[in-house]
Amino acid sequence: MIKFTAIRWKKTVLLTCCLLSLFSFETLIAQKTANWIWYPGDFEVWLGNKMQNRRTERGTFFPPFWRMDNHYVLITFSKEFSLQAAENVDISVEGQYNVKLDGKMLEGFPKNLSIPAGKHALVIKVFGQDKVPSIYVKGKELVSDSSWSVTFEDKEWIDASGKVSEKSGTDWLSAGSWNFTDPQMPPSQFRLATVAQSPAKAERKPQSAMIDFGRETFGFVKLHGLKGKGNLALYYGESPEEALSTEHCETFDKLSIDQQQPKEFTTELSKAFRYVNIQYDGSIAFDSVSMLYEYLPVTHRGKFRCSDEEMNRIWDVSAYTMQLNTREFFIDGIKRDRWIWSGDAYQSYLMNYYLFFDSPSVTRTLLAQRGKDPVTSNINTILDYTFYWFMGIYDYYKYTGDSTFIKQFYPRMVSMIDFSLSRRNQNGMVEGLQGDWVFIDWAEGVLDKKGEVSFEQILFCRSLETMALCAEIAGDGARAATYKKLAADLKVKLFKTFWVEDKKALVHNRVNGVLSNTVTRYANMFAIFFDYFNKEQMQAVKQNVLMNDQVQKITTPYMRFYELEALCAMGEQSYVLGQMKDYWGGMLKLGATSFWEKYDPNEKGTQHLAMYGRPFGRSLCHAWGASPIYLLGKYYLGVKPLSPGYDQYVVEPQLGGLQWMEGTVPTPNGDIKIYCSTKQIKIKADAGTGTLNFKSKTKPGIKGAVIQSKGDGLYQLTVEKGKEYVISYTAK
Amino acid sequence: MIKFTAIRWKKTVLLTCCLLSLFSFETLIAQKTANWIWYPGDFEVWLGNKMQNRRTERGTFFPPFWRMDNHYVLITFSKEFSLQAAENVDISVEGQYNVKLDGKMLEGFPKNLSIPAGKHALVIKVFGQDKVPSIYVKGKELVSDSSWSVTFEDKEWIDASGKVSEKSGTDWLSAGSWNFTDPQMPPSQFRLATVAQSPAKAERKPQSAMIDFGRETFGFVKLHGLKGKGNLALYYGESPEEALSTEHCETFDKLSIDQQQPKEFTTELSKAFRYVNIQYDGSIAFDSVSMLYEYLPVTHRGKFRCSDEEMNRIWDVSAYTMQLNTREFFIDGIKRDRWIWSGDAYQSYLMNYYLFFDSPSVTRTLLAQRGKDPVTSNINTILDYTFYWFMGIYDYYKYTGDSTFIKQFYPRMVSMIDFSLSRRNQNGMVEGLQGDWVFIDWAEGVLDKKGEVSFEQILFCRSLETMALCAEIAGDGARAATYKKLAADLKVKLFKTFWVEDKKALVHNRVNGVLSNTVTRYANMFAIFFDYFNKEQMQAVKQNVLMNDQVQKITTPYMRFYELEALCAMGEQSYVLGQMKDYWGGMLKLGATSFWEKYDPNEKGTQHLAMYGRPFGRSLCHAWGASPIYLLGKYYLGVKPLSPGYDQYVVEPQLGGLQWMEGTVPTPNGDIKIYCSTKQIKIKADAGTGTLNFKSKTKPGIKGAVIQSKGDGLYQLTVEKGKEYVISYTAK
Repeated sequence: MIKFTAIRWKKTVLLTCCLLSLFSFETLIAQKTANWIWYPGDFEVWLGNKMQNRRTERGTFFPPFWRMDNHYVLITFSKEFSLQAAENVDISVEGQYNVKLDGKMLEGFPKNLSIPAGKHALVIKVFGQDKVPSIYVKGKELVSDSSWSVTFEDKEWIDASGKVSEKSGTDWLSAGSWNFTDPQMPPSQFRLATVAQSPAKAERKPQSAMIDFGRETFGFVKLHGLKGKGNLALYYGESPEEALSTEHCETFDKLSIDQQQPKEFTTELSKAFRYVNIQYDGSIAFDSVSMLYEYLPVTHRGKFRCSDEEMNRIWDVSAYTMQLNTREFFIDGIKRDRWIWSGDAYQSYLMNYYLFFDSPSVTRTLLAQRGKDPVTSNINTILDYTFYWFMGIYDYYKYTGDSTFIKQFYPRMVSMIDFSLSRRNQNGMVEGLQGDWVFIDWAEGVLDKKGEVSFEQILFCRSLETMALCAEIAGDGARAATYKKLAADLKVKLFKTFWVEDKKALVHNRVNGVLSNTVTRYANMFAIFFDYFNKEQMQAVKQNVLMNDQVQKITTPYMRFYELEALCAMGEQSYVLGQMKDYWGGMLKLGATSFWEKYDPNEKGTQHLAMYGRPFGRSLCHAWGASPIYLLGKYYLGVKPLSPGYDQYVVEPQLGGLQWMEGTVPTPNGDIKIYCSTKQIKIKADAGTGTLNFKSKTKPGIKGAVIQSKGDGLYQLTVEKGKEYVISYTAK
Repeated sequence: MIKFTAIRWKKTVLLTCCLLSLFSFETLIAQKTANWIWYPGDFEVWLGNKMQNRRTERGTFFPPFWRMDNHYVLITFSKEFSLQAAENVDISVEGQYNVKLDGKMLEGFPKNLSIPAGKHALVIKVFGQDKVPSIYVKGKELVSDSSWSVTFEDKEWIDASGKVSEKSGTDWLSAGSWNFTDPQMPPSQFRLATVAQSPAKAERKPQSAMIDFGRETFGFVKLHGLKGKGNLALYYGESPEEALSTEHCETFDKLSIDQQQPKEFTTELSKAFRYVNIQYDGSIAFDSVSMLYEYLPVTHRGKFRCSDEEMNRIWDVSAYTMQLNTREFFIDGIKRDRWIWSGDAYQSYLMNYYLFFDSPSVTRTLLAQRGKDPVTSNINTILDYTFYWFMGIYDYYKYTGDSTFIKQFYPRMVSMIDFSLSRRNQNGMVEGLQGDWVFIDWAEGVLDKKGEVSFEQILFCRSLETMALCAEIAGDGARAATYKKLAADLKVKLFKTFWVEDKKALVHNRVNGVLSNTVTRYANMFAIFFDYFNKEQMQAVKQNVLMNDQVQKITTPYMRFYELEALCAMGEQSYVLGQMKDYWGGMLKLGATSFWEKYDPNEKGTQHLAMYGRPFGRSLCHAWGASPIYLLGKYYLGVKPLSPGYDQYVVEPQLGGLQWMEGTVPTPNGDIKIYCSTKQIKIKADAGTGTLNFKSKTKPGIKGAVIQSKGDGLYQLTVEKGKEYVISYTAK
């Protein structure tokens, strides 16, 4: 009897455990989300083609001049799984497909399956020429997600006796996905979000209308109550001058209205504009004009406010500039190219970490840029832009800690760096070869791009360091060692070559063995924030290059980004604050509602609109114009990850002359909130462990925590997650 | 006055010359044909995707298991030209495009241009995701053709001052084209031709019909006067057994008839069949059944007739088998795979040279097989099939002399051979690695495919020889020398390894350093017609291998092809004639109307229909079944090119026991017609210079030409183009 009870007890416990584990398992299952999945990178390449081929210039199609790749047209999706209970599974597919369950091919194009409990293997093969082969599988337990494996080449075969051979030699990757969770909305149907907006002002005249939307914007123009017949043209302008210049505005739509159009008419392609000049003839009439603002829904997690209202306005307009340029991908500017330029995107990544922290936008952009093998040219055909691509990966890992992405795309990184390595000259350095564009910066006529440019070697060196890091993450020890050595050797070599002791600076280039006499800012400022200089060199460069007006000045926000970063990295926040107010404040004073591709304070009037030999060639909404977001987040609020993904981070607030500032810096697992005045610092973080460093003239006070004195007026506090710290101190 | 006259005379002559040259130039122009053009290989890859993804197996989509590539989606077409007079030019484009004339971008999507006389540069950029970017340009002088240049990466850029940079580093190729000369019929609209055909027999029963089209055929089934509602199934059969086996037939169509269908209903996908078993229910009724036979229009230029009626029937059925399998590409068989298998296609190329001499079918197939870089596996994943691809190029050049093709696709040959070279083992030999299928032949269970297989080394060696030849044609002297050396070294090494003196044969393989004891036919027969043996070896191999029943027999027409070729190459035409009558005659006696994938005389009844573990798995219309075309053309009529493209050729008629034979062998520039009986030889050729070799017991007679005696009863005649020779002789 006792024995029986014991057994019974055991059974009950076992059953309870089972039920408990089943219960929690079921709960887990219930949360599983089915996603449309594809071969990683393929949707991004396909969307990149779609987006980048939408550029028009005065009504003419204007495609990129680099190779456009394509998705793999035939993909095998595979999943081995175990079901607790039998279930029904729905299947949606983009493309022509077949389904094999447990090795048995099912007839036709199954849309749902009944799968019994137990272990199973499901294989779905999809062919799609015009759309990316994608699947959506939804059962209770079984869902399509990144745990599925995919390959573009399954290498299976059937011998004459009917035996199916093992899939040896097949390369499987984890499936790619984004946020497509609706079976009715497959990847090919992806569209950005839109919302209706009204103009700020509308001037109507006979057969014309001038519409002002109040600020730079992007979207589709809507004509309400459209009727009649005739020709109607919409001339878009970022400035009123551009919209009014029917001969020179960069973009327009010319329509033939014949009553086939709906009364509520919307333009086909979205465009950038603030002003729309509408000209029409015949019997055409319409009641009013509005627009559908088109945007990528991202949250503005990063925030910044301070005692200087001009700086607040600079931050807001920077954030709006970033929002407009954060679309299917991080693009250069919304009016003209709307392409994915690697050097431009690199800066958007950095700004993104202090504004949206939207990782999919970073990886989408990196993947679309990279395209497919073989590598036949530099990214965007630009030597420096290949290196920015690597640097973008370096930062992505630093900020997000996403090692899955690194592992998955490591092979494409290897083939990309192989291309760069294969193009080194006999000195082991890179220079512009046939088909390479050496860009550096827009600085017409004054920038020598020939031979071995020191700036390019610095970027190449950082790219090799990136590869050493990624090879380690991918578990490729042999290559990690190789890249590490290549990087170290190059660093030694480039300093030996370009560092000129009596100039105390890196000189610009070496052509046919002859070293240039010229010092430019580019290599010097990158070497600063890459931490390539020793202390003495750094101080010398600061004086001799960065703060030396004899050295060719920078006139693009693009390179201003790095120049100011280098100065911030050396603690020149006060100086840089003045520079920001001058430069970005200067654009605001000229009425900018978003920041520009180029700004030269010496130019006047409509000179500010011209570029590329065209009166309205300049983009007035360029992502690289938004760098204050990055500078204020990283060097004023002072937040930086110390270990990948912000597990460890540092906060070093620098007021740079402000009376107070407060802000939020987003991280993968929550936010870091900071307030800093000359007397008080407040900090609270959702995740990770932070180190707050600050200087104080007086001994700082805090409740419920310990501040360590590091000597010389420097103090340190460990910031734990979820806890708010309020420090009283006296700013130095 | 004299002077004046002289000048005047000169002028007149000059003018006349001018006019004459103008006249002939105009005549030339008038003949210029505009063609749809594309990036070379891209249409072929796109069409390959389309065709190869049309396979179904019992209603289920059945795609290939190797990587499918894609066309480049963004292409730049460029042409520099000079016009004698102003002209209007029409432009048709597949894709989104822009047009730049003389550096100036034209607005919108121009459909026609007025171009003044003089020098011009026209650039058209086209983006096409779902269709191959293609253009058709037609003026009087200016037409789109292979003289246009194309690139997938134009690498041009515009600097900030508006300067467009040179297109340095851009790889331009000559445009690809085929025979698309109608602007209304762009490449994406390509369809094979169809013609209506009636059944030989139709048996109707209530709610079913069994239709017999009299012989193996391919196309779309048509139901005439279709009405009512219900389900209708078409079960296709190459045999009546297959059509009647609704459970096991390889292909079917199941339709739901709901009166939405037209009264004259045609099936959507073309299929292979001789028999169609139609089963239907509900109120469905139809009057009659016919078909649309679907085919590639090619001319049967090759001909063969002889004193043996069975041989004539073998030739006819071979030619019909070839015609059925010569479609968008040379495919393996029409019922099942309908894929482009390189080993199968290789034989089709050879047969094609003696039947259609349709070069575009060869190049289309070679290009679709090769796809794009990077190379990630062997062609069709099969080790031997990569080598057949090279051998196909070797023969293509030998038969056609088309060096343009070689030059154009040489880079893709280099990357393909680089793949093979990168997979050699430490002995410099190839063996099946991860992901490789070592096929050799269907010979289940009896064929060892492990380690270093002698057959694979022989094919690899020939591939390297092909690359040496192609590198020379492409002007790549350095690589030509490398390939030559690699081939020579491998040949020495493989003989040293596999030739076993006491067996007087090449043994089958070496696994982990241990040489096999087994002799198979494969390596030995290829070494014969590759001319790798010395005379003594050749005779020994003939006795010890080819004519030795102890050596594992071949049961596929695929390898019979090479076995019989090897025997023919050694003068065994009489023996081979007997073999052909046995083997192909055997199939005819079993009622074959096309030749099969496999034929084993020892099998009985429906055993002949089974393969791959399925009762009707075997293809009864397989291209590799048609080899008598090749054997009869090359080794009986005896015609072979000596120099590329038949500039020099040889004719060595061998009756092989026939009383007489006559035939036509097509060449690039005309036909070679031969008649040969035991007493008379007649020959006439349209082009080239031929050498006729024949043996005679008596001194041969001829009128109007000189026959040289070469001693030992051997005679020689030089055949000049356009001249008919009639020789009397006495066959030995």
